[in-house]
Amino acid sequence: MAQPHGRIFNFSAGPGTLPVEVLEQAKEDLLNYRGTGMSVMEMSHRSKAYEQIINEAEADLRSLMGIPEGYKVLFLQGGASLQFSMIPMSFLGSGQTADYVVTGTWGKKAIEAANMVGTAAKIFDAKDTNYNRVPEFGGLNLTAGAAYVHFTSNETIQGVEFKEDPNLPVPVVCDMSSNILSRPLDVSKYALIYAGAQKNMGPAGVALVVVREDFLAKAPEKTHPMLDYRLQSENGSMYNTPPCWTIYICGLVYKHLLAKGGLKAMHAVNEKKAGVVYNAIDSSNGFFKPHAEPNCRSLMNITFTLPSDELTATFISEAKAEGMVELKGHRSVGGCRASTYNSMPLEGCEKLAEFMKAFAAKNG
Amino acid sequence: MAQPHGRIFNFSAGPGTLPVEVLEQAKEDLLNYRGTGMSVMEMSHRSKAYEQIINEAEADLRSLMGIPEGYKVLFLQGGASLQFSMIPMSFLGSGQTADYVVTGTWGKKAIEAANMVGTAAKIFDAKDTNYNRVPEFGGLNLTAGAAYVHFTSNETIQGVEFKEDPNLPVPVVCDMSSNILSRPLDVSKYALIYAGAQKNMGPAGVALVVVREDFLAKAPEKTHPMLDYRLQSENGSMYNTPPCWTIYICGLVYKHLLAKGGLKAMHAVNEKKAGVVYNAIDSSNGFFKPHAEPNCRSLMNITFTLPSDELTATFISEAKAEGMVELKGHRSVGGCRASTYNSMPLEGCEKLAEFMKAFAAKNG
Repeated sequence: MAQPHGRIFNFSAGPGTLPVEVLEQAKEDLLNYRGTGMSVMEMSHRSKAYEQIINEAEADLRSLMGIPEGYKVLFLQGGASLQFSMIPMSFLGSGQTADYVVTGTWGKKAIEAANMVGTAAKIFDAKDTNYNRVPEFGGLNLTAGAAYVHFTSNETIQGVEFKEDPNLPVPVVCDMSSNILSRPLDVSKYALIYAGAQKNMGPAGVALVVVREDFLAKAPEKTHPMLDYRLQSENGSMYNTPPCWTIYICGLVYKHLLAKGGLKAMHAVNEKKAGVVYNAIDSSNGFFKPHAEPNCRSLMNITFTLPSDELTATFISEAKAEGMVELKGHRSVGGCRASTYNSMPLEGCEKLAEFMKAFAAKNG
Repeated sequence: MAQPHGRIFNFSAGPGTLPVEVLEQAKEDLLNYRGTGMSVMEMSHRSKAYEQIINEAEADLRSLMGIPEGYKVLFLQGGASLQFSMIPMSFLGSGQTADYVVTGTWGKKAIEAANMVGTAAKIFDAKDTNYNRVPEFGGLNLTAGAAYVHFTSNETIQGVEFKEDPNLPVPVVCDMSSNILSRPLDVSKYALIYAGAQKNMGPAGVALVVVREDFLAKAPEKTHPMLDYRLQSENGSMYNTPPCWTIYICGLVYKHLLAKGGLKAMHAVNEKKAGVVYNAIDSSNGFFKPHAEPNCRSLMNITFTLPSDELTATFISEAKAEGMVELKGHRSVGGCRASTYNSMPLEGCEKLAEFMKAFAAKNG
């Protein structure tokens, strides 16, 4: 079945596919946003029209994620990568230790940045099995009095995902870049949640930070403005000009997800979507080999290998010819990766699964 | 005369108006960029299609600005505000002094960040005349062996602009956020040029950095990745996911400016545009009072006051009714400000000038 606007199924790990309805709205608004006579891209961030856009984005996100009172919502630049640095700069004091749970590439980058600031303890590392698993939260050896414990709720490259919120006696900091908004969560279990937008929320160029006020209060009194959570919070993410258009698109995505039934509904669809692809892997008699252990298979990034590099290349090129692109896996895992973020339609996953079954039957 | 798409004349100081042709192209590309089957917002930054976008943006910018060999072009996040910090962090070593020329609000912010890092010498400050003037480069008392001298080529809030490139015996660092691409320049006179995009180049969310390689070589060997010019340069501005859409729009603007005849042509139009507005000020028998001294009047931000706050408010609201918005000045100068960036059509300035003359005649 042909997609609207000649669009194809884009399994990119990020920037990732967006809801077609959001893009249609953006197109309609593009030259003249709702009678303002200008594009959102041209709008003063201090204007009433833009204030409404950013305020609604925050309110919709609070509703969607169930963010309780006592948490600040920030939209910052620099992506999750700048957060890797800002977190220890702000919350890892001298003489303190921060615990890091390393389940893949992004966790490794996070602890590297922490090591540039102070003492970071690697309390879990799945390197020995090439990052195909996650630990039980209950089994972690936390450092007594740790400044915080950091983990990555979903590792985009390896495709391993924690299936529950942690309940830990130290402040929990979580990089949710690649599975935020994909399922309900209990924000009260976290001191700080952050996520680059470009997988489940919108275009690249903004990072979301949700931070508990008592944790935020531990940040230093004065630091460089663009590295200062406190200043950004006091200025409603507008200490300087924010990435206005990017936040506007995120806001449209939030409204879209609310209209679709919120995170519970998204989770049900995401389980179904990932289910059909994992089923194609599991029913292939070993032709497709999954990377992640069964209990931590990501609903967002499905990683698997084929019997040979040649078959992998053929698979990717034949899939492309069928209108399914960006299926090549990261070199650290090899093989293929299908990113099935919120905005990937069920039909995309079904089409991929059918293609996989036919490919295995032909080449197995 | 009605504007296309019901658009109005937007004199915002930033984010500012963009060329209607660029927005039309963005609208056409929005759901399916030139047959790729996806939006630029959904495109992997590692894809061939996106590589072409960012590479063409850089090549067109190099052509437009006449950037010589030996300079790197970077597209970074965090705006000019993060540059205020990254510059001294990278280039102001201990025991060194950096000279700062302060001609307005942005210059003040730049030296504040430098003072958090090391020794910054304020070698000029126009505070005593509320920042209505700029110095002669030849008259500056540079610190012998200064790490660099920093100035702001155009102060957005005060509306004062340097009219020539400096020729100085120390590395010159310049914040060109609000007048970049508005006139030809000699890049070879600068060690580092930076500019937030949202005035003359594109939407908010990206800062351009043009840096001479021998100056870049002075940056520290290792620092936090998102604060590391060297790392960003080695990775072609793609150490992490760049603000893809924002850079794409900047690229469309560069192509548009090349098609319009480049910076020489823009400068001629900008002089004409600002000329008609300054003429309305000068011919008003003192009804409108210009803020900037005549020799440093900005072509981009025209600042002026009216006889009373009441008249100012009436002026702004009557202009709005005529389809001319964002004319309120910043509180530190008061009165009005008309930002007449590259993308403001001549007709917008002519309409404003006519309106000003009629308003002065009626209320003077």
